[in-house]
Amino acid sequence: MPPTGAQVKETTFRVRYAETDLMGIVHHASYVIYLEEARVDFTRQIGAPYLDLEAEGYSLAVSELHIRYKAPARFDQQIIVRTWLEEVQSRAVTFSYEVVEPQTQTLLATAQARLICVDRSGSVRRIPETWLNIMKPLEVTS
Amino acid sequence: MPPTGAQVKETTFRVRYAETDLMGIVHHASYVIYLEEARVDFTRQIGAPYLDLEAEGYSLAVSELHIRYKAPARFDQQIIVRTWLEEVQSRAVTFSYEVVEPQTQTLLATAQARLICVDRSGSVRRIPETWLNIMKPLEVTS
Amino acid sequence: MPPTGAQVKETTFRVRYAETDLMGIVHHASYVIYLEEARVDFTRQIGAPYLDLEAEGYSLAVSELHIRYKAPARFDQQIIVRTWLEEVQSRAVTFSYEVVEPQTQTLLATAQARLICVDRSGSVRRIPETWLNIMKPLEVTS
Amino acid sequence: MPPTGAQVKETTFRVRYAETDLMGIVHHASYVIYLEEARVDFTRQIGAPYLDLEAEGYSLAVSELHIRYKAPARFDQQIIVRTWLEEVQSRAVTFSYEVVEPQTQTLLATAQARLICVDRSGSVRRIPETWLNIMKPLEVTS
Repeated sequence: MPPTGAQVKETTFRVRYAETDLMGIVHHASYVIYLEEARVDFTRQIGAPYLDLEAEGYSLAVSELHIRYKAPARFDQQIIVRTWLEEVQSRAVTFSYEVVEPQTQTLLATAQARLICVDRSGSVRRIPETWLNIMKPLEVTS
Repeated sequence: MPPTGAQVKETTFRVRYAETDLMGIVHHASYVIYLEEARVDFTRQIGAPYLDLEAEGYSLAVSELHIRYKAPARFDQQIIVRTWLEEVQSRAVTFSYEVVEPQTQTLLATAQARLICVDRSGSVRRIPETWLNIMKPLEVTS
Repeated sequence: MPPTGAQVKETTFRVRYAETDLMGIVHHASYVIYLEEARVDFTRQIGAPYLDLEAEGYSLAVSELHIRYKAPARFDQQIIVRTWLEEVQSRAVTFSYEVVEPQTQTLLATAQARLICVDRSGSVRRIPETWLNIMKPLEVTS
Repeated sequence: MPPTGAQVKETTFRVRYAETDLMGIVHHASYVIYLEEARVDFTRQIGAPYLDLEAEGYSLAVSELHIRYKAPARFDQQIIVRTWLEEVQSRAVTFSYEVVEPQTQTLLATAQARLICVDRSGSVRRIPETWLNIMKPLEVTS
């Protein structure tokens, strides 16, 4: 569960057929795409769109990813990803996630992703102030 | 079947689990990746590696793709893609493919892909002479 | 353009980061997933959800796919896929598509996909009447 | 580095174009596919092919995945994944991985994946003895 006080944004979408595998359920790699989709949507919802960061010459490159799979997801079902900022540093940011089935609120997965700010050449850089100013206050501080 | 006289190169690999879907077979989008893998390997085999073309500032962008699916492929089986050059023009090139199961030689799919040469800005450009000189003589001429 | 009288359904979504490639644009295989997404959404919109067909033991397996790429799509942009039924036969159905950028209405791609009805064992089967009755009247009849 | 005494198997392949993203490097989700490819190949190399496990009605479902990304990988480069068994339990198995660039031996990523044995219905099951007997002695025991 998101910690008290965390500003949680929700992203909802449906499972695509191509995201399933022969086990009949969503392939575990598809969740990595879901988390990315939720992260990009999170930045849009807080008013600091990831697209603008890229336009300024920066990228957030995933440096660490940790997913715990709890229950299978299936074709065509709706998925909610709840996203919040676990930690914001000058050069890195950590997102936490809950992946949930909306009808029954079944927890499908939990995850954390740490991303570092890099420029076009791949060098680690300070996250631009505009983004830090928007993201810092959203960080979990408990 | 490749036309008489076509210089056919073969690329062999195994089906990955993630490339299957809940129908229990390889998802039809995975073949697009297989064709690309075979195309890149073809350019390596003829001594005009696609990577070098990219290094010179050019890309071959797919402008048309036509796939006919004949029989399903399954997890972990080997796949052979037979690739040849159907047509070479100054700004575009058309590859033809046969996707085959090696043990029984079952035809899994046939395909054609037309690619146009573009530069970094996306403008259509003439394919560099080095590539044309290597690819032109390999074109199907019947 | 969809022919006069065609019942066209629209599906809208955003390009995911993972769907791009090092050319900086959407990879051509991603469109295959977009067409599938649109096709599944089409069946939902006409009241004959593909999920229900699967639940009854049938699948629609892609037997032929033809895509013409017209203009590149980019990360985070919105995509509209317009989908209509080109031909409905007792064992096969052909969808036509236009992929469009909504702001400028730029045509990104056109496509056709032919699907055949199969059962769990992969044998070709007649499309269940319920689906035929809903899809037949939507077919392009010009 | 794999711990002393670990039985490490290597799997080598090339980066596919579709596995890159607009950052110009391999997308982080592609590593999940690489780990799966290496895992399946590992089981083949030790003589307990994953395909046979599926044929007996079992699957190994990923329950936890942890990846640390160290350096970017690029289109067409060769990738080596070194795989070993960290822990073997009656119903679960943990693989460890190193992803390496072969020329310079640059470490691209390290990872762990825990998988649980399930049957067709998704219920947790004991790993069949044949597999346990082959895998148990390969487990890291330091």
